[in-house]
Amino acid sequence: MIISIKPNVSQEDIDKLISDLEKLGVKVDRSQGATQTVLGLVGDTTVINDETVRANRHVDKVIRVQEPYKRVNRIFHPCDTVLDFQCGSHKAKIGGGSFAVIAGPCSVESREQVIAIAEDVKKAGAAFLRGGAFKPRTSPYAFQGMGGAGLDILLEAKKACGLPIVTEVMEISQIELFNDVDLIQVGARNMQNFNLLKELGKTRIPILLKRGIASTMTELLMAAEYIMAGGNDKIVLCERGIRGFDNFTRNILDLAIVPMLKKKTHLPVIVDPSHATGYSWMVPAMSKAALAAGADGIMVEVHNDPEHALCDGEQSLMPNAFAEMMATLRKYAEIENKNI
Amino acid sequence: MIISIKPNVSQEDIDKLISDLEKLGVKVDRSQGATQTVLGLVGDTTVINDETVRANRHVDKVIRVQEPYKRVNRIFHPCDTVLDFQCGSHKAKIGGGSFAVIAGPCSVESREQVIAIAEDVKKAGAAFLRGGAFKPRTSPYAFQGMGGAGLDILLEAKKACGLPIVTEVMEISQIELFNDVDLIQVGARNMQNFNLLKELGKTRIPILLKRGIASTMTELLMAAEYIMAGGNDKIVLCERGIRGFDNFTRNILDLAIVPMLKKKTHLPVIVDPSHATGYSWMVPAMSKAALAAGADGIMVEVHNDPEHALCDGEQSLMPNAFAEMMATLRKYAEIENKNI
Amino acid sequence: MIISIKPNVSQEDIDKLISDLEKLGVKVDRSQGATQTVLGLVGDTTVINDETVRANRHVDKVIRVQEPYKRVNRIFHPCDTVLDFQCGSHKAKIGGGSFAVIAGPCSVESREQVIAIAEDVKKAGAAFLRGGAFKPRTSPYAFQGMGGAGLDILLEAKKACGLPIVTEVMEISQIELFNDVDLIQVGARNMQNFNLLKELGKTRIPILLKRGIASTMTELLMAAEYIMAGGNDKIVLCERGIRGFDNFTRNILDLAIVPMLKKKTHLPVIVDPSHATGYSWMVPAMSKAALAAGADGIMVEVHNDPEHALCDGEQSLMPNAFAEMMATLRKYAEIENKNI
Amino acid sequence: MIISIKPNVSQEDIDKLISDLEKLGVKVDRSQGATQTVLGLVGDTTVINDETVRANRHVDKVIRVQEPYKRVNRIFHPCDTVLDFQCGSHKAKIGGGSFAVIAGPCSVESREQVIAIAEDVKKAGAAFLRGGAFKPRTSPYAFQGMGGAGLDILLEAKKACGLPIVTEVMEISQIELFNDVDLIQVGARNMQNFNLLKELGKTRIPILLKRGIASTMTELLMAAEYIMAGGNDKIVLCERGIRGFDNFTRNILDLAIVPMLKKKTHLPVIVDPSHATGYSWMVPAMSKAALAAGADGIMVEVHNDPEHALCDGEQSLMPNAFAEMMATLRKYAEIENKNI
Repeated sequence: MIISIKPNVSQEDIDKLISDLEKLGVKVDRSQGATQTVLGLVGDTTVINDETVRANRHVDKVIRVQEPYKRVNRIFHPCDTVLDFQCGSHKAKIGGGSFAVIAGPCSVESREQVIAIAEDVKKAGAAFLRGGAFKPRTSPYAFQGMGGAGLDILLEAKKACGLPIVTEVMEISQIELFNDVDLIQVGARNMQNFNLLKELGKTRIPILLKRGIASTMTELLMAAEYIMAGGNDKIVLCERGIRGFDNFTRNILDLAIVPMLKKKTHLPVIVDPSHATGYSWMVPAMSKAALAAGADGIMVEVHNDPEHALCDGEQSLMPNAFAEMMATLRKYAEIENKNI
Repeated sequence: MIISIKPNVSQEDIDKLISDLEKLGVKVDRSQGATQTVLGLVGDTTVINDETVRANRHVDKVIRVQEPYKRVNRIFHPCDTVLDFQCGSHKAKIGGGSFAVIAGPCSVESREQVIAIAEDVKKAGAAFLRGGAFKPRTSPYAFQGMGGAGLDILLEAKKACGLPIVTEVMEISQIELFNDVDLIQVGARNMQNFNLLKELGKTRIPILLKRGIASTMTELLMAAEYIMAGGNDKIVLCERGIRGFDNFTRNILDLAIVPMLKKKTHLPVIVDPSHATGYSWMVPAMSKAALAAGADGIMVEVHNDPEHALCDGEQSLMPNAFAEMMATLRKYAEIENKNI
Repeated sequence: MIISIKPNVSQEDIDKLISDLEKLGVKVDRSQGATQTVLGLVGDTTVINDETVRANRHVDKVIRVQEPYKRVNRIFHPCDTVLDFQCGSHKAKIGGGSFAVIAGPCSVESREQVIAIAEDVKKAGAAFLRGGAFKPRTSPYAFQGMGGAGLDILLEAKKACGLPIVTEVMEISQIELFNDVDLIQVGARNMQNFNLLKELGKTRIPILLKRGIASTMTELLMAAEYIMAGGNDKIVLCERGIRGFDNFTRNILDLAIVPMLKKKTHLPVIVDPSHATGYSWMVPAMSKAALAAGADGIMVEVHNDPEHALCDGEQSLMPNAFAEMMATLRKYAEIENKNI
Repeated sequence: MIISIKPNVSQEDIDKLISDLEKLGVKVDRSQGATQTVLGLVGDTTVINDETVRANRHVDKVIRVQEPYKRVNRIFHPCDTVLDFQCGSHKAKIGGGSFAVIAGPCSVESREQVIAIAEDVKKAGAAFLRGGAFKPRTSPYAFQGMGGAGLDILLEAKKACGLPIVTEVMEISQIELFNDVDLIQVGARNMQNFNLLKELGKTRIPILLKRGIASTMTELLMAAEYIMAGGNDKIVLCERGIRGFDNFTRNILDLAIVPMLKKKTHLPVIVDPSHATGYSWMVPAMSKAALAAGADGIMVEVHNDPEHALCDGEQSLMPNAFAEMMATLRKYAEIENKNI
């Protein structure tokens, strides 16, 4: 961390600031120029809050050389994190040369629906089954998900089809229901629900952490740091689109975060093109782009009967479109030496 | 709600869609033009999810004529909501011609600090004391607030100084500790923590709901609708800055939301210029602007000893600067016939 | 400018970098810490491009202590710029304790329209008449303004009513037509039309420079620097709303830029609440807020016959609403010791 | 276009509105519901400005069913536009199954530099040479390009190496110098320089139109419509990153606009990953992603001597890295049946 001091600050005030900073456990190098003084902090500056330093009335600007995250930082943990899953004889992997495909319906609606879709996506090559039991909805009058009963259906589908399951947790009291879930999703709206993150840090179940709708890359990594600081190092990051000024897609899919995250952290990174775009017809193109950009997998919505009801979801792929997409993704994966 | 149908959809498919919509309890007017068919939905369309309708493969576009919120909507509740507070002999009001000033430190640090600041801000004319006991922090390594002990200090200050208190709740299990809090704050990061909103809807304690950092006006109102749908109609909305592309201020203070919210909802609206700008020297200008724009109050950070520690907060006003600002605000309030 | 060097860069490479930097005319202070080297640049760093330095493969981060603008910078020019206008016996001022109100129709439609509105706004206290002759329109099929004929009408209105006029220039070849215009507007879309800015820098006519729709504060000041570098120091800056993720107003009125600009530059700053919000009923509230935030004036759209045609502009005030607003603004101005 | 009328508007006022609308050359279908009236406009609604209609005091909401653009609209021109180029014996194509690679230095610095890079990129498979002669720079003190002399160097390189050239025009008076340029670039800052677009519409030289930094998709297409309305139908659109709230990349590369543009318009679409990300090491990943998303080509910065000067550009690829990237792109192109 480099701190530039405002002009005309007395030596006494600078000494006081240096002494305050050193109490936090860092060493301070002082560079006195003709017109400006610059302090260079050496040591573990992750314990220092930028804003706190910036608030000091003698400080002009603050520049962080080290990142504020530590456990998720590739610098301190150069090897890729790889997560292994086993469900009966079916093995799955996120990271480590795998391109993991997580597929399934947006919401769990019924046992039949989930098992039928699970079989379809498994046949097409999906490695994980997704489905929402607890659903965050903008309106209190909208369907809020089947809750615990939905979770039971997913667990049944897991047993029936042998796919590990991915589903969203919304609050602390639900965590105890998630013991047999393979990958617990933290949704975009909860990315900075710090109490929830801390509790998930105490479990040893893998966490799928989605980027908040207006979260910076650093905030996403700090959210992962919360989980990892609690002792749970099984984390997958997920880009799912951010809020922008146009609305031709539901959100803006920020694919360039994929290579940047791969550089900054050892955690695997996947992409959700369904929520990012909001249109099923765009999902194949953006899934291929995600693979090309270096993602470790994708999470896509698949539904088998969009004609049956109003809640089909324009963003859900039909099983045959999903299978077709998987065929092309395999060709892409081959070029990149990844396994689907 | 108006729905335009894609070209070349068969009469049978349109009939089917109309029948599906009418099952949801609305009446459907059909307008057949030469080249396009338009459906007009009459009745309570708040039960209908726009995205669900948009997802139907025969639907081209959807336009909402009625807003998706009902209980917070001024149309169905034309009179302003006014909240009355009493703390010993001190009375305070939010809404109803009052300009409510909520002031105090960002975090509760000690009994002495809080009581000293409480006395300062009371003397200057603040109607409420604010202070954070549970603190949402981006970094797991930053000070997380004093928790329950901080809450006790606030309650003591309330008794000592006679100011109603405002403090933030972060998760459901904390709510039971907030029985004697006068106005419970839901922070920007929790604006769409729907489980928390539902639980707060079951209490009868007034809620200060802050706008999420990238929340639309409709999302803010839907969050309030969650609380009100639970039976708690004592809600104050708060604009606190949104995320933008520049960083000369911490966030962008979106003051135009104040008159728009006053038009759309009966709930009172206040402004937090401290978090919005991040600089204490900007707080007086933006507080005056908030009053001018029609806000029912402000919430500002005041600290009495910014020299003492590194965590002074460049966004906290000193008590004397706060008192000076209050003097000017009283002149502005007079023009607008508001009481401070 | 402070430059932190990447770890493990050789002394030779650092020496080379320092020597390259010094060729640009600055002095370089070198601070060697245990783990990092920091260079502090002393002198006129406005000649140095941040991105160029950042591009060097040995550089880790760059922090600018001095701003990249010089002539518009308050540091080098502490006194406020004040612009004086005279039109017959009518005197007007922007800056220097004046709150300048610029009012008139969006587009010049006819001689009668412009003169009638000019008389209305003059009577109500406007100091300037605005009107568009050359109009930037999103669609090539929309009315593109009356052009030169519109300009003639404005000049006639100036003579008839004695108000200095403000109108927009769209390209270099038009400048020669603007000799008798009092304040030449550069629209948001042209804020970074650098060739136009350079040409306007060669004139001595005051320029009203509107902030681009997604322009940072620094970019706005650098655009003003282009004009001032050409020798024209009569510049007024204008906040007119920036693009955001919501659409309850046309743009986001970023009022906090007003006090920040007043701190960073000596140039006067006005606000355009009509384009920022898009709704005439919001203009009075946001005009008062602009004054409260410290603006040196406003520019508002006024139209006298919104019923006559489809192009009334929901953002145009009727003359009586404008007069009412002016009456309240006078009370606000009194508190702030400003003259309207 | 569908227009919903506010409640309680008299039949007379609605009749007046319908009659005003029909004067614009459209037919109006009226649908009278129990509580609301909806007008459906049939015919060429591209002549009608949404905002104008929205401004009418009886209108509640306006929904556009047809897009506001016509000539660039795929609906009215279903076949893909394909541009053919010939330069000596070298043929190049944009659109029509080609994946066109445009490569070269950011700025023209010297004859030697340009010719050396041109030969490198041609050998690696680039179809076009790019280079900037007139440079839009944020600072008036930064290098503004070599101007006409730079253009001459590009034309010489074209002759020497046989690659068609792409370079940016900044204002109308420069157009006459661009007669031998193969593809004239309009930069992001000039996307809504409508006078420039109109003049370029009068030429018959192909135009590369870059998306503005905060331009919506519709605004980009309307800018293209300006050119096409002038009679020049040789247009290539270019996504080059938009402004967002984070800064880990220079801009946000909005790749999902590629498939959406391909659906909405017949014009070819390319991607500029160099400006979008700002880092050369990200260019290969994002170039592959662009191809995967369906782009018709890319434009990338290549420089052969980044060590020589400070202005290397962290976003410029070295020729060997470029050649490596081309090899992988060829494999991707094969899957998508595209020719490089």
